[in-house]
Amino acid sequence: MITLCYAKGTAALAPHILLEEAGADYTARLVDFSAAEQQSPDYLAINPKGRVPALITEQGTLTETPAILAYIAQVFPAARLAPTDPFFFAEAQAFNLYLAATVHVNHAHKQRGARWTDDAAAQEKMREKVPANMTDCARIIEQHYLKGPWVMGEAYSMCDPYLFVITRWMKVDGVNLDDFPALSAHFSAMQDRPAVQKVMQLHS
Amino acid sequence: MITLCYAKGTAALAPHILLEEAGADYTARLVDFSAAEQQSPDYLAINPKGRVPALITEQGTLTETPAILAYIAQVFPAARLAPTDPFFFAEAQAFNLYLAATVHVNHAHKQRGARWTDDAAAQEKMREKVPANMTDCARIIEQHYLKGPWVMGEAYSMCDPYLFVITRWMKVDGVNLDDFPALSAHFSAMQDRPAVQKVMQLHS
Repeated sequence: MITLCYAKGTAALAPHILLEEAGADYTARLVDFSAAEQQSPDYLAINPKGRVPALITEQGTLTETPAILAYIAQVFPAARLAPTDPFFFAEAQAFNLYLAATVHVNHAHKQRGARWTDDAAAQEKMREKVPANMTDCARIIEQHYLKGPWVMGEAYSMCDPYLFVITRWMKVDGVNLDDFPALSAHFSAMQDRPAVQKVMQLHS
Repeated sequence: MITLCYAKGTAALAPHILLEEAGADYTARLVDFSAAEQQSPDYLAINPKGRVPALITEQGTLTETPAILAYIAQVFPAARLAPTDPFFFAEAQAFNLYLAATVHVNHAHKQRGARWTDDAAAQEKMREKVPANMTDCARIIEQHYLKGPWVMGEAYSMCDPYLFVITRWMKVDGVNLDDFPALSAHFSAMQDRPAVQKVMQLHS
């Protein structure tokens, strides 16, 4: 049995959706960020980094969203959630890496600026650039990486729920989705999927 | 034939070393950051994100360090540079993801603060926290993730050259490596490898 540790509104939504799409037998465990449970000794024993998602498996615990997404795709091969050819697998991974290491990081400068400075004025300055940075990322994704209708083209994959999470953040970060028709269409198509609708009930 | 686009002192050093370890037939193409070549139209046609590394293959171009490292490991299986069991592969990926999305990002707040704010005073405030953040990351890696002697234990893998790059940055970012004996031993062991010595001649 797999257990996904998640918090509402976080990147954990992506593997949560992917577990549903895979038809996995799993449990979801809510980590209460409002009580700072991610910094509790019990949770730090699961993930010393104090973050979600974490995926507890019979072989041990995995962290980091793109690594967890690729793991789910690999252990549920019948669901065909990632390419198996090494080049196209790497291409899908590179997409998820861009979301994790650039887009998510840009988003984090809005609410999590204390990671990089304790100075309140500097945090406010960082917050000011978030809409422009997130809009740049939306443009790069729209122009270069979203093949359509799904990220990798005709086949739904481990990239799609992660982009769905990021697009939700773009909307609240001041990106005008009307400027990005492919991203908007992807977001709508994701909202129509039963797996997304089921999981969103736990994340709202 | 594979072509690695790299710049000196960047994360591209990691796949550069791994290509050598794999015994790959490849060309290295220097991108001149001092002339802002990464923002030239020619280079943006290779990588619209204007970053290195980029790996040009016969099937297309790959970006993002952890995705490129996993690709090299998969297309040169005889070199055994990544676990094949999905759990242990994901564990190795999670290690590289932490370096990419947290440690590299912390490091970037020293020289690349303009990514997140145009305000010079705020950039200086971000710079002040870099030594403490990088030391926290060193502690987490030392205590929880570096199994020793290599990252994944007895087997050298795609994680090791990436950790080598990050440890070099830690040293210049104010981390006292004497406080981290496992990291120090790993750094020394990497410096002893012929592949590392060969590639470092191009990065120095």
